[in-house]
Amino acid sequence: MVDLHLTILGCGSAKPTMRHHTSSQIISRLGKHYMIDCGEGTQRQFHKFGFHEGQLENIFISHAHGDHCLGLIGLLSSMSLNSRHQGINIYIPANFEQILKAQIDFFMPHTEYGIYIHPIDCQEPTLIHTDEHFEVTAFPLSHRVPCYGFLFKERQGKRHIKPEAIQTYNIPYPEIEFIQSGHDFTTTDGKVIPNEELTTPPVPTRSYAYLSDTQPMKKYVELLQGVDLLYHDATYCEGDEQLAFLYDHSTASQAAEFAQKCNAGKLILGHFSSRYNNEERLLECAVRHFPHTILANEGLNVKIVDKTEDGTTFIERKE
Amino acid sequence: MVDLHLTILGCGSAKPTMRHHTSSQIISRLGKHYMIDCGEGTQRQFHKFGFHEGQLENIFISHAHGDHCLGLIGLLSSMSLNSRHQGINIYIPANFEQILKAQIDFFMPHTEYGIYIHPIDCQEPTLIHTDEHFEVTAFPLSHRVPCYGFLFKERQGKRHIKPEAIQTYNIPYPEIEFIQSGHDFTTTDGKVIPNEELTTPPVPTRSYAYLSDTQPMKKYVELLQGVDLLYHDATYCEGDEQLAFLYDHSTASQAAEFAQKCNAGKLILGHFSSRYNNEERLLECAVRHFPHTILANEGLNVKIVDKTEDGTTFIERKE
Repeated sequence: MVDLHLTILGCGSAKPTMRHHTSSQIISRLGKHYMIDCGEGTQRQFHKFGFHEGQLENIFISHAHGDHCLGLIGLLSSMSLNSRHQGINIYIPANFEQILKAQIDFFMPHTEYGIYIHPIDCQEPTLIHTDEHFEVTAFPLSHRVPCYGFLFKERQGKRHIKPEAIQTYNIPYPEIEFIQSGHDFTTTDGKVIPNEELTTPPVPTRSYAYLSDTQPMKKYVELLQGVDLLYHDATYCEGDEQLAFLYDHSTASQAAEFAQKCNAGKLILGHFSSRYNNEERLLECAVRHFPHTILANEGLNVKIVDKTEDGTTFIERKE
Repeated sequence: MVDLHLTILGCGSAKPTMRHHTSSQIISRLGKHYMIDCGEGTQRQFHKFGFHEGQLENIFISHAHGDHCLGLIGLLSSMSLNSRHQGINIYIPANFEQILKAQIDFFMPHTEYGIYIHPIDCQEPTLIHTDEHFEVTAFPLSHRVPCYGFLFKERQGKRHIKPEAIQTYNIPYPEIEFIQSGHDFTTTDGKVIPNEELTTPPVPTRSYAYLSDTQPMKKYVELLQGVDLLYHDATYCEGDEQLAFLYDHSTASQAAEFAQKCNAGKLILGHFSSRYNNEERLLECAVRHFPHTILANEGLNVKIVDKTEDGTTFIERKE
């Protein structure tokens, strides 16, 4: 099974602190990087943790608050300075399109690579991106401005043909891909061999969901049922529910309750308010509801695995 | 004499590196901070080196290339989140006005403090700002887009009245301020006492000039004659004059030649190209032309003094 990683570049909230950078993270699979959110200073964090611009072709912006998108124009400008030619897809809430285009026009008049902006404007979960690695679904969250969560589902691989079946039924080479796609095989004397007898199931696919910034979203318990890894807004601590409600955020406990209802494999708490000197209390509250919870931190690298496994590794905590 | 300090927040050039942040610096006098340029991530550097938003009321942007201004909207947004009420002056090249206003309108719709944008559009050195601390003159540089240098001249203090003169000529209290401003005094019997006999000169004023990004600007040798501290574009090293010319920048040697012609007190080289792993070679080249040269670095803090003194102190080199 190929490696699938999430790396946190920033997990603070809007007010800047020395403890955390503003929101951004990277999902990596087979040498491709997918960026979610891009707060100010993200390009520096991206390089600091060893990522390469050439492997980044898709950026997903949850919403147009500065701490989630102000680093985008700097990142795109630097790609231009670095003589990028390959195109890049940028998925953004529709209300961000006009100002983003105005910034690109002003700051990057001589850009030689394609910047493909895909506005998101949906009321229900909607498939917005598909490639050989993932299907990405956007779903509207509850925040002060249009804001979307993202569900990354690994693409289903092909079934594995059993070597002994190839011998037994003398399956010709051109038929193998067809059988791996789930079809039965008909022998030269007309006998139909069911696919299950010829193949084993593909490796299980893995999934990752990002929900920040938002109030708790019970309506997505079904959509996210069984998600392997969940990153959830935990701006506030237990006791600050009213603040969370007022500013359209969640507490760590609400995030954990949601993870538990989703039957998630693991929960990462993030988007921490600047009011906390450390987030241990948030973790304590969350694990009461959902034990498989960890705190985000800059440089945290999580191997996304089937939800029965623990795939957490830390590559670096902080600068 | 009150302290006057320059602190470098960032002295890299456009391509991001782990060695340097993009351009920004702070001049401090009597608890007031003046910011020059504001590249991406400046707000973090500003807080890292212990500055306070409440003491910042004037920002000067040299030109609208991203590495000199992309941090502005984040800084202004954070001030809003921090419930700022006092106004702020922002001096910018006129071509930056429209997009900056569009960004402010979009990212800061609920701002409660005044953001006073002062577009600069001059062909000759022009006084753009005056307060109790400084007179700031903008002068056009030679770069690919409208770009200005800034000359900070400390305001001339009043002359000091000699205590013995007050006694000798029985000078009434209300006259003293008038005499300190340079006027003569007429005694009750009509005798005119020249000001020089009544006062000693004010403490010498100090000056600072910022020239980045630009080709060498010999035309300003007279304007900047005797400047106490000079920060100059030194993007390239000796041998890379053609690159410097092509991209409208300077080499370290050109910066030093200019400092020597200006009879400057001290030169700080900055805006280093990402191509150099360290800037020692730039310094070596520069000191051949002008010995009183130092390299900028994040956290470098320079006490600006009369040009006969050495006022360099380092508070922190790097993160």
